[in-house]
This record gives sequence, C-alpha cells and structure tokens, in this order.
Amino acid sequence: MAVYTQLGAEALAVLIAEFDVGELRMAKGIAEGVSNSNWLIETSGKDGGGTRFILTMYEYRIELEDLPFFLSLLDHLAAKGCPVPRTIHDRSGALYRKIGDKAVALIEFLPGVSVSSPTVAQTQAVGGALAQMHLAAADFAGTRANGMELTEWQRLAVECGPEGLRAIDPQLADLVARELPLLAIQWPDDLPRGVIHADLFTDNVLMLGAKVTGLIDFYFACTDLIAYDVAVTHAAWCFDNDGRNFALELSAALLAGYEAIRPLSGAEHAALPVLARGAALRFTMSRAYDWLNTPPDALVTRKDPLAFARRLEFYADPANAGIFATT
Amino acid sequence: MAVYTQLGAEALAVLIAEFDVGELRMAKGIAEGVSNSNWLIETSGKDGGGTRFILTMYEYRIELEDLPFFLSLLDHLAAKGCPVPRTIHDRSGALYRKIGDKAVALIEFLPGVSVSSPTVAQTQAVGGALAQMHLAAADFAGTRANGMELTEWQRLAVECGPEGLRAIDPQLADLVARELPLLAIQWPDDLPRGVIHADLFTDNVLMLGAKVTGLIDFYFACTDLIAYDVAVTHAAWCFDNDGRNFALELSAALLAGYEAIRPLSGAEHAALPVLARGAALRFTMSRAYDWLNTPPDALVTRKDPLAFARRLEFYADPANAGIFATT
Repeated sequence: MAVYTQLGAEALAVLIAEFDVGELRMAKGIAEGVSNSNWLIETSGKDGGGTRFILTMYEYRIELEDLPFFLSLLDHLAAKGCPVPRTIHDRSGALYRKIGDKAVALIEFLPGVSVSSPTVAQTQAVGGALAQMHLAAADFAGTRANGMELTEWQRLAVECGPEGLRAIDPQLADLVARELPLLAIQWPDDLPRGVIHADLFTDNVLMLGAKVTGLIDFYFACTDLIAYDVAVTHAAWCFDNDGRNFALELSAALLAGYEAIRPLSGAEHAALPVLARGAALRFTMSRAYDWLNTPPDALVTRKDPLAFARRLEFYADPANAGIFATT
Repeated sequence: MAVYTQLGAEALAVLIAEFDVGELRMAKGIAEGVSNSNWLIETSGKDGGGTRFILTMYEYRIELEDLPFFLSLLDHLAAKGCPVPRTIHDRSGALYRKIGDKAVALIEFLPGVSVSSPTVAQTQAVGGALAQMHLAAADFAGTRANGMELTEWQRLAVECGPEGLRAIDPQLADLVARELPLLAIQWPDDLPRGVIHADLFTDNVLMLGAKVTGLIDFYFACTDLIAYDVAVTHAAWCFDNDGRNFALELSAALLAGYEAIRPLSGAEHAALPVLARGAALRFTMSRAYDWLNTPPDALVTRKDPLAFARRLEFYADPANAGIFATT
C-alpha cells in the first residue's frame, strides 16, 4: 500500500497523451496495491468515454510476462458484462506501455467502496459476481499457472522453518506439519478448471449498497480449480477479520448467491471442505512468510497469519463438517 | 506519504452522513500528507454542492489545537476567491469531527495537478496566487506562531550536532555554524507580518496549464513576515530539485507575478536575500534532522538536506546578490 515511484505531472501528461482519453486534469497517488504503484487519474474525456481511470505502474519485472494475461482478461470479462474494469488501450492498441524499464497500464475507474463487515445481502451478491466471472471466463483463451498452489505452500513452510512458525505461535508449526501432507494427499485434481480470481477479499470488491460495482486486483488470477476460488472467497468473507468467528449466514449466502448463477457439481460440492482448508493454509503460509521477512518498523502493515490459521483449524474441525451442506 | 489508519466503508459512511453532502460512493486512500491520512471521497452530492472531497485524519494530537486556525483560514481564503479548498462544516456547523481520539476534517476537492518542472508562466501564476492569498488573509482574525522559525533551526542544529551534520556532508556543519549566527543578527523584525503558507512547494500547488487551481496543505501556515513566504516560495520554485541550478527567469517571473498583485515595500525587497538564506536554512535543518532520524529502510522517502544547503550557498554567495534586483 504505497506509491513507490514519483511521477511528475509532466511525465503523466505525456503518458496520458498516448491514450485517446483527453487531457490530464488530476492525478492522485492512491494507497492501493502491494507490489505496484497506483494513481487515480482524471482527464477532460472524449466523446462517449469515461474521464476517470486507474493508472498502475508495475514495480517488479516478474509481472511483465503476465501482464497480457491480466489485462486482456479484464477486457474479456468487461465485454461480457462482468463488473470488471476494462483496460484502456493506447492509440496503437497496446495493452500497456513502458516508462523506462517499468510497465504502466491504464484501466477503467469503477465507483463503489470496499466493505469491511459485509452483510448477508452483500455476501450473496459477491457469490453471484464470482459465479458470473467464472462463466464469463470460460471461453477466455489465456492461461496462467497458479503461483500460489500447494507446492508453493510447501516451499514457504520450508522457508519459514518450524522455529520461525513457532516464533509466530507455539501451535503453528504443528498445524502446518499436520495439514500440508494431508492436503497433498486429499487435494482434488479432477474438478472443473478455469480462470479464477484467487484473491477475492473484501478490499478487492467495490460495492454500492448490496450491488457489486467492481471486482478488482486480478494480479493473482490464474488457471486452477474453479471451486477453489469459491473456497478462497469463503475464507475471505465468512469470518470476522481475525478468524475467531465464523458466520454461517454469510457462508450460506455466499454459496446461494454463487449457485444461483453457477451450480456446483456434486464433486465440487464434496471437495469444498478440503479446498477451504487449502485456501486457509495458502494465506496462513504467505502471511507467515511475510511476517517473518518484513521488518517490524516497516510502514507496510503485516497481516496476521494466525487470522488464517484459525480459519484452518475451523475448517479442519470435524464438528464443522456440515457448514457446506447448508445450500 | 501514507495512509496510517484504515477506515472501513461502514465507518466512512457513518462519518459522511454527519455532513450534508449525500451518500458515500467512493473512498480512495491517497498518498499525500506526511503526518496525516487522506482519502479522496466521492458522494452522491446535494443540490448545488460538490461531490468530491478530501477527508483528512490528523494522526498526531499536537495538531488538534491548531485545527481551528487551519480550517477557518481555508474558509476565509476561499470566501475571498483564493483557489483554496473550503472546509465542509458538519450538520452542526463544526469544522472537524472526532473518530475515537483522532480529528477528521472534510475539505473541498480541487482539480489540477502538481508540476515538477514549472514553466515561466506557471511560476508567475504562483507568484500571483501567493500575493492574492497574502492580501486576502489581511483581515483574518486567527494567529498562529511559526513553529519553524529561527530558534527552531537553532534547536535542530543542536539536535543534529556537528558530527551528525558532517555525516551527511563534510561541509554541512561549517555551513550551518556560519549561517545560523549571521541570520540571528541579520534577521529583520520590522517587516509587515501576516498569515503565510510557509511551505508553498510545487506539490502544494495544483495547476491546469498555467492556471493555479489550488493552493493546498496549509499545515505549516502561521503568522510571520509576509516577505519570508515569498522567500520560501522562491527557494522552492526557482531551482532544480537538487538545488544545483538556479533559474533566473523563474525567479524574475515569481517576483513579477507577486508584485503585480502585492508590490513589495522597499524594506521587504531589501530583505529578500537574508530571508532567502533563512528559507534555505529552514529546510536544510528540518531535512537534516529527518535524515538522521529516519531509518534508511523506512518506506518514507528521506528528502535530501543538501538540496537546500546548495540553495543556501547560492543565496549566500555575493556573486548572486543581484538576483532579487531584476524586478
């Protein structure tokens, strides 16, 4: 959550002139994005087009090869009516441009705010928007491997080490040592695959009331089990922030909203408990790694890995086996 | 440049409802402000009112007692036609509200962008806007002592210590040791006093082309020598960023733009060289202190104190005595 690169008005104006969007009228660096810099841009506009955009500068080279996937996915989904910001192509039709050695892309601005304590109606709407996205992506040609799949959780566990995990919490090393091998055995591989968002937390959804106005931040999007995206969204939306309290009514609303648009198959439904454990472990591991590798005095807020370790314990508890049966 | 406090959409919506500005439609944390958090807010608006605002949360208690000065100054200047954002009062008429122990204020949004390499026309316009502000503030009732005056530069020099200054640059300790006592003797005390901005750098001015659309960030505003504000603005606008190159044409444009609205008195004009040395030393000292007291790995960008030490050397060089004589 930072703006890593300063871009003066002159440099921005030159960049914006490469797009057919009118003249620059405002540019505010916004505190969004973890590995990139973002500006909210306003222009004088052109006939029939918008006047507000998000300009993203990709700060790390590694993302460059994935940019065509991310940016053309936005175009594909927006063209199918999903509430997703479309990519503004430059005058030559390119999806992104370079400033020095960094890539920059201009995408549509969408209204709405991110909720922090979703209601039943909001959670149901998010379920529907996720299903709509899965259906709309079915004929998208691009593919991208999931960089945060099970082998990566294993690698992060090794990087953290049992001592590191125990330093975060005395129980955490045992939890990871128990769940990782179980999930490696139980993980399904015969479920429908497709493009998934893979990170649909509340801050990646814009809403006005109970209407989803934007699904944003597709930079973890990849090709993987579609039902795993439901599990990630479940873990993100159906607990309070620190993972201590599960909300059955939000869980039921998410699944009802999803299945009204895209009913889960029997096999997908049966796999939800293990997929949810995987989703909880995925964020436990990435947060644990970041926790151990972010200086405590850095201005970046470290996210608590235990918030997802608690979700993992919840999903793994046989007493909670019935929660996905409520649909 | 950060957003220190997270404010969820629900908390923001409750806050915005305390103002007569319609319903919340967007909130983006923006990367502006050093000691406070800022959001660009959009609402559904009301008849005759705007729909965009800047919400500022003051993170440090120390500013609270000064808030009425800052916020009513904005109202006063905006009412007189200065390009300054007015304060949006809440439904009870209050200038600011509290969230927990922190104060928050809603101010008008102004369009425009901050230039980084100003043109002659832009610099002349800024001179005019500064003069207009000084005239408009003449009947403002509030007063506030300058917290960054000469005694504070002396205190910062002691805090840094000669070793600290030498660690920044071998020559810096000698420069400060020479200039501080000279300025203490030469500093004028019989010039016109009034409300000054005291920090009118390019990033605190919004422009569209060569038109000033906003003077912002009045959190150093205070009551002091009016001509000192001209000197601060001169030091900020008439050099390249690192202070190595002075631009005589920008200097002439700034003074011409200023004097077209508020001619300097003979005494003010004669004092500009010493006031400019003071302005350069003021930013040298605050930056030197921050340089020595900000961890190198903090995400806050440390501003180079030498960029203003070079300006100080320039202003103190007898060969440059004529630069203020060009008006």
